[in-house]
Amino acid sequence: MKKVRVAGFSLSLDGFGAGPEQSIDDPLGKRGKELFQWYLGTKTFRTMFGQEGGADGIDEQFAARAMDGFGAFILGRNMFGPIRGDWPDENWKGWWGDNPPYHAPTFVLTHYPRDPIVMAGGTTFHFVTGGIEAALDLARNAAGDRDVKIGGGVATVRQYLEAGAIDELHLAIAPVVLGRGEQLFAGLDLPSLGFRVTEHAASEFATHVVLAKDVMPSK
Amino acid sequence: MKKVRVAGFSLSLDGFGAGPEQSIDDPLGKRGKELFQWYLGTKTFRTMFGQEGGADGIDEQFAARAMDGFGAFILGRNMFGPIRGDWPDENWKGWWGDNPPYHAPTFVLTHYPRDPIVMAGGTTFHFVTGGIEAALDLARNAAGDRDVKIGGGVATVRQYLEAGAIDELHLAIAPVVLGRGEQLFAGLDLPSLGFRVTEHAASEFATHVVLAKDVMPSK
Repeated sequence: MKKVRVAGFSLSLDGFGAGPEQSIDDPLGKRGKELFQWYLGTKTFRTMFGQEGGADGIDEQFAARAMDGFGAFILGRNMFGPIRGDWPDENWKGWWGDNPPYHAPTFVLTHYPRDPIVMAGGTTFHFVTGGIEAALDLARNAAGDRDVKIGGGVATVRQYLEAGAIDELHLAIAPVVLGRGEQLFAGLDLPSLGFRVTEHAASEFATHVVLAKDVMPSK
Repeated sequence: MKKVRVAGFSLSLDGFGAGPEQSIDDPLGKRGKELFQWYLGTKTFRTMFGQEGGADGIDEQFAARAMDGFGAFILGRNMFGPIRGDWPDENWKGWWGDNPPYHAPTFVLTHYPRDPIVMAGGTTFHFVTGGIEAALDLARNAAGDRDVKIGGGVATVRQYLEAGAIDELHLAIAPVVLGRGEQLFAGLDLPSLGFRVTEHAASEFATHVVLAKDVMPSK
């Protein structure tokens, strides 16, 4: 059965999924990169950028799962780029260069219409102005039998969580405190939304936890 | 040099240090006990209650450190008991029976004066109505060359953090989500308060992290 998943989503110990002050030089906000140390050394990440080698332990297992099995992606506007408001022109095509790591239809939430952009490697960016439910319907249709990934950022994940639309959430909690930024958990009651921890494993760089909705009665 | 430390302080993934609805039957609030699975099996915990055996891995190392080297303790009123407002009588003597695990002068923050209580095993409960700074002065004096432990709960730790009085913080982050309760991090900017992660290690039951103030320039 196809699922809506968040995966490979990094958080600080104090619950921030990105640092403050996102900009063209700091796509993840100030110090945001420190959250992704677990990911940067993995075989999955290195392969994505044409590099050899890389770690194949716990971090790699979760990295591979975080990019595997998805037929469509949904991204918030800020995850797609630093531009706010209306699109000034057609030049900005995401943070990822000509061949983004999605390789599937990717729906970008925005209030400002824009024509789709066909990228190399199978990624097409579609701009959805109809809200999160419209984007999810489009993504589900596009994904066929495969899962839909809510790629982030924090505000987008929070909206889909609150809407009850997410089946599974993999968080990688890095051993750093950020103090400022976008808080994932603030005001969210995950157990009331049906989630419990179903899996956890730690590496040197992160504690990985998977939260899923109960499919069996909990103990 | 003697320090003011928080140690063995358990948190859920979503940042709660205790569950909601503390009561005589739920000293840690609803589901609060799930935060302490890492602790309950340790040699340190079992010895404290006259039991043999117990685990001696990572959890035990942190459990031992969390009770060792302290010459005085500070507890919030709710950590001491479920009674709110004025003391109805002298009957309540803490959650821990005749021989509490402190074995040292222990200062309880309260707005309601009460005479000290001498317990078995070296613990004396002193009730401090002069606020957190007065309690810390008393505790420092009582501790001599040893450290002062801020024993909890969440509100008390937050007050001492905000006052800049804490040198080191050991948190044990359990792989559970609580959704409700007392949030340790909300509105606190630990890096701005001078903290960074200086140590981390994970067991099956918790990710242990130590936060300390920079004594050397950070990288």
